[in-house]
Amino acid sequence: MRFWWVNHKQTVRHEIDDSYLWSPKRTAKGARNHFYDNMRQASPGDAVLSFADGLIRYSGIVIDYASPAPKPDSFESVGSHWSDDGWLLPVAWQPLSQPVRPKDRIAELGPLLPEKYSPIQPDTGNGNQGAYLAEVDKSVYELLVGPAGVRDVSQVLEVPDLDAALARVENQMQKSILDDPTLDATTKKQLVSARYGQGLFRRRIYEFERACRLTSVENPRLLIASHIKPWRSCSSSTERLDGANGLLLAPHVDRLFDRGLISFKDDGEAIISPQLDRNDLCRLGLMDASKKLGTPFHPRQVPYLAFHRENVLLP
Amino acid sequence: MRFWWVNHKQTVRHEIDDSYLWSPKRTAKGARNHFYDNMRQASPGDAVLSFADGLIRYSGIVIDYASPAPKPDSFESVGSHWSDDGWLLPVAWQPLSQPVRPKDRIAELGPLLPEKYSPIQPDTGNGNQGAYLAEVDKSVYELLVGPAGVRDVSQVLEVPDLDAALARVENQMQKSILDDPTLDATTKKQLVSARYGQGLFRRRIYEFERACRLTSVENPRLLIASHIKPWRSCSSSTERLDGANGLLLAPHVDRLFDRGLISFKDDGEAIISPQLDRNDLCRLGLMDASKKLGTPFHPRQVPYLAFHRENVLLP
Repeated sequence: MRFWWVNHKQTVRHEIDDSYLWSPKRTAKGARNHFYDNMRQASPGDAVLSFADGLIRYSGIVIDYASPAPKPDSFESVGSHWSDDGWLLPVAWQPLSQPVRPKDRIAELGPLLPEKYSPIQPDTGNGNQGAYLAEVDKSVYELLVGPAGVRDVSQVLEVPDLDAALARVENQMQKSILDDPTLDATTKKQLVSARYGQGLFRRRIYEFERACRLTSVENPRLLIASHIKPWRSCSSSTERLDGANGLLLAPHVDRLFDRGLISFKDDGEAIISPQLDRNDLCRLGLMDASKKLGTPFHPRQVPYLAFHRENVLLP
Repeated sequence: MRFWWVNHKQTVRHEIDDSYLWSPKRTAKGARNHFYDNMRQASPGDAVLSFADGLIRYSGIVIDYASPAPKPDSFESVGSHWSDDGWLLPVAWQPLSQPVRPKDRIAELGPLLPEKYSPIQPDTGNGNQGAYLAEVDKSVYELLVGPAGVRDVSQVLEVPDLDAALARVENQMQKSILDDPTLDATTKKQLVSARYGQGLFRRRIYEFERACRLTSVENPRLLIASHIKPWRSCSSSTERLDGANGLLLAPHVDRLFDRGLISFKDDGEAIISPQLDRNDLCRLGLMDASKKLGTPFHPRQVPYLAFHRENVLLP
């Protein structure tokens, strides 16, 4: 379990209300950024403090790994200089009974803060410009919210609205598609169907795939048409409806693939994320399936797989 | 493969456009009806002729088994005397190149029709009042639409918008819930979340269930909160949000349960539908899991399981 501190900007309301954090993957200039990279480091069960306007008002628990997701539409003009390509980290927030002003306790707090990548300045307690998600020591957390503030993870895991934040992002995107005057009615219908693995997208996958790559299931009633590069991350209608961007997977394999717990090499070999518990793999009956050599992918599938390995597969 | 003939009433447009057939489970007086019982007999790959206004204009292929579903809202006042509780059978329709009037060929057709439960009168060719889904001989089908009219099932199974018809029914129900002035905003949100196995409904299941009953998976990120009595079939908000009406299932087990390919006895033992291919069960790694004795269900779960066995489990 790790401890994080987020310096919210103007989007605090959206992020708290809709149970997530969102950051771009890179800076406006395209450079990597330590505080954005931390989004991928955060893991389910980690604790987060929310700092905005000089106050810590909420503590949260990370409820799932970050997923690639475009900037939420609800940000609107806020953060308009940010890249549209980012990480969405689901967090269950709860308000502190009493907001805490770190500046008031900076004498005790300062020495506990990290030397590098601190969220606030250890002498003044002012927020560090440019810091977003920073890692802090457990002692920082305990000083500010007390040991009782560290919630029991098992309780939170019973309440895993895991898909809810992503579903909200996708609902907004779907609305934008339906409102888009440049798309005809047929295309709109196909794009919405594709989100659910149905219609034209599903039919087109059969040009590339015939069965689940891990279980060999061929029965269409048991197969899910899954996007390799997620529907929400596609940059165009073409990508969303491209049969080469799809796999036919048994439902449990689809879930693992969607959550970045498995992926595939270009030659068809399965990759198991270190985040996937071997007991779970075994309970799902996939221990052997994941070891067999698969069929190499079609060249048109390869760029989508590269995206999945880089952005979805959990390191 | 079996051959069916449906006598459409005023709802032909909805049923053709939205790729299904719908009938009540019982007559207005609560009696069983052979033509309604046939809805559960129809299987994926079966052929159907659509008869309306004296003409056969469409032939179709059954794309999935019937599911319990309330009367589609799009029927509106049509069929207002029908029970709200019925069967929805997904069918992929295609228009005939040339509509056929059975009456014109009744001399050849008459002798081929069944003596009992015929869809039309073998002497006059008039539709039989009260007939809905009737079984006919292959020769009837071939006489009217020709052997070429019997489409290759494998082609259709590549296009299995299996969930689409049910999703449309549920979307309409969701809209009714959101428009319902008697429900408060919180309840509406909970009911919509419950449709997706999230929120209050999911939390409440943990009072009864801790892990997948077939795979023993406990990881909440790999578990789906599934309604025992389907969300669309629930008769009240209470049933939709009742934790006793839920199971936590691994995604592939959820799919089998949802499709009626497995169910459970009250003592926890799994039931495998004869419609579930043993090879598929094996490929899904569930051959052993399905044989183990489970934990008996809680008395509050029992009525929901009875509904599932009677209405969802495929005989």
